[in-house]
Amino acid sequence: MGKKGILAVVSGFSGSGKGTLMKELMSRYPQTYALSVSATTRSPREGEEEGREYFFKTKEDFEKMIAKDELIEYAKYVENYYGTPRAYVEKKLDEGMDVILEIEIQGALKVRERFPDTLLLFVTPPTAEELRARLIGRGTETMDVIKSRLDRACEEAKGMGAYDYLIVNDDLNDCVEKMHAIIQGEHQRSSRNEEFMRKIKEDLNSLKGED
Amino acid sequence: MGKKGILAVVSGFSGSGKGTLMKELMSRYPQTYALSVSATTRSPREGEEEGREYFFKTKEDFEKMIAKDELIEYAKYVENYYGTPRAYVEKKLDEGMDVILEIEIQGALKVRERFPDTLLLFVTPPTAEELRARLIGRGTETMDVIKSRLDRACEEAKGMGAYDYLIVNDDLNDCVEKMHAIIQGEHQRSSRNEEFMRKIKEDLNSLKGED
Repeated sequence: MGKKGILAVVSGFSGSGKGTLMKELMSRYPQTYALSVSATTRSPREGEEEGREYFFKTKEDFEKMIAKDELIEYAKYVENYYGTPRAYVEKKLDEGMDVILEIEIQGALKVRERFPDTLLLFVTPPTAEELRARLIGRGTETMDVIKSRLDRACEEAKGMGAYDYLIVNDDLNDCVEKMHAIIQGEHQRSSRNEEFMRKIKEDLNSLKGED
Repeated sequence: MGKKGILAVVSGFSGSGKGTLMKELMSRYPQTYALSVSATTRSPREGEEEGREYFFKTKEDFEKMIAKDELIEYAKYVENYYGTPRAYVEKKLDEGMDVILEIEIQGALKVRERFPDTLLLFVTPPTAEELRARLIGRGTETMDVIKSRLDRACEEAKGMGAYDYLIVNDDLNDCVEKMHAIIQGEHQRSSRNEEFMRKIKEDLNSLKGED
């Protein structure tokens, strides 16, 4: 049951450690999860590799992808495009792998519009106090830096309620296992197993017919 | 987060092994789960103990409990009442324990009407073939017995879609752990953590005020 992969979007507060969390999830369960790689028109930074951090595209190529509906969602930040290529996601889902997208709330909501079964996970520190500590830092940041982090966190917090689950990042190990348990548990949602239920009902009816 | 207990109703096909499953869940996680004991007006059978299998009540006492709204749900089968006493459930939930009710679909839906956060779990054999095998037995059952099992299973199957999760009972050990993972994962649903989200938003706003 629930053989088709689940599309899971992971977002979270900046500094919630979700990058590390994703890497650990992939390395523990490489047969279960596939991490979607975004396409972008921004230039590669030192150490970044084509197809690992991003698929690097020219603006022209990216706009062709948009026109041909090859992206599940895309957005423009500071003159650069970022988007999620559709082909890879659909291929992995069909293979039965759970696909993880690490994107922000606007993208998350667009993905869910397109794939209503998308699971939305939001990574957060365990308490408001800890979030506060991460935002303020050690008192060595300028007011401007803190203000811009606060603004961003406020924006992120506004969207939290739209997510299905909050993943509390207290301890990396626990957090990876919690995320794994939640995604695997979702495979057993009855709404994801319509075919299984239909088959059982059909079988029972045909057994009654044989009486 | 998610400190308040979850009320989980477990139903399933007859012979799906849910009784054994419940016992095993309780014995592995006695600090986490409390099993609700039903009240009934039927007579105790040999080996049954007051407060363990059931709370045994006279018809008069049971009807008083109904009148005083002391039952979350109740039903009458073959001249006997069966119902779920409210006080125990609410006490355990407030203590932060997850409370399990093992009742049938009609009761499950009544409970959810009253407590909209109720989690509904349905225990099923892994395949329609296996359900069929369990219903037909080893060829030693009379047609009447098989027919009555089939009728009952058809009724049970009709309600399956109303449940949140299907718990596939393939292997007892796996099944107990799956059920545990699902209930514990549910504690992290954002809809069960409104207070946590409100607190984070409030803290962020008061930090902005301090700028």
